[in-house]
Amino acid sequence: MSEADRASRPGGRTARVRAEVLAAVVAELAEHGYDGLTMDGVAARSGVHRTTVYRRWKSVAGLLVDLLDSGATDDWAPADTGTLEGDLIALNREVYESLTIEPSITRAVIAASFRTPEAGAALREFWADRYRRSGVVVQRAIDRGEVPATTDAYAVCVAATAPIYHQLLLLRQPMTAAESDRYARAAARLGSS
Amino acid sequence: MSEADRASRPGGRTARVRAEVLAAVVAELAEHGYDGLTMDGVAARSGVHRTTVYRRWKSVAGLLVDLLDSGATDDWAPADTGTLEGDLIALNREVYESLTIEPSITRAVIAASFRTPEAGAALREFWADRYRRSGVVVQRAIDRGEVPATTDAYAVCVAATAPIYHQLLLLRQPMTAAESDRYARAAARLGSS
Repeated sequence: MSEADRASRPGGRTARVRAEVLAAVVAELAEHGYDGLTMDGVAARSGVHRTTVYRRWKSVAGLLVDLLDSGATDDWAPADTGTLEGDLIALNREVYESLTIEPSITRAVIAASFRTPEAGAALREFWADRYRRSGVVVQRAIDRGEVPATTDAYAVCVAATAPIYHQLLLLRQPMTAAESDRYARAAARLGSS
Repeated sequence: MSEADRASRPGGRTARVRAEVLAAVVAELAEHGYDGLTMDGVAARSGVHRTTVYRRWKSVAGLLVDLLDSGATDDWAPADTGTLEGDLIALNREVYESLTIEPSITRAVIAASFRTPEAGAALREFWADRYRRSGVVVQRAIDRGEVPATTDAYAVCVAATAPIYHQLLLLRQPMTAAESDRYARAAARLGSS
């Protein structure tokens, strides 16, 4: 095995550098928002040499795209509570927390997606993957006979989660966790339409 | 009546200048997006002297805020079709069209709201007013005995419209008018929860 192979294998030096840099991106986003995210700030915080950061990620947009790409290879899966309603409530609580926690990386990434086409495209891919994985909660409900086999998994997951993003990010209105649960319950009944 | 009074009364010169400038803002946004919106471009297109535009609106953000404020004084009201489902379908079709028409002023204003705090605040006020007015579709359904008197008008209108914004703007996925109708139908059943 050559040194190059060793460096780029999973868990090798390349993976370690990536993990350090992406952790620094998250920390910088949390502290300064997208406007305060700089290549030099990320390099300084990560302890990775700035020429490496510039060579590998090119730009702030490149850092954000790689952060979103890294989510595609994690092992996230929706909770399995035994009912469609329970699963959607759990899903909504995850979304709710990600948008109301301070500082919210999710909010920062969404704001950035309206400013940088590359970030917009990367966020689209990230969400397409997340909603695909979320669809299993509807498939399980179909298998249990809870909802008809024709139920549109994507539409149910969008109906559950969309009001949280809309109310908090676009309408910029407050929202309680109980309201987020209620939207999940309403979406759970979508299957029976 | 002094000349100053005459100039600022509704329908007077001040109102005419405002209408010309805001029409130019819409046209420039449609043509160039928020990134291409400039004070000089708006002045040139409107035919209003640039010193007047700078004195009265100060900045591009000021133009956008005034555009949104002007929506608060229009006579928009949701359609009255005779049923909650029909009213929500009509509402969703308006939202759907505003986001899928090319060019979409709504998309441009939403993108701008993530970049300029003043635009974010103005859009929040604009939407608070729009959702307040939309609530009448639920009040009419309560009056007809279609849904319980405890039905949350705001939650029903958010549940109907949120999936359109979420799917088209945040998830950046295509959507048909039929899907938009379906989300309206699901929201109409929220009252019976």
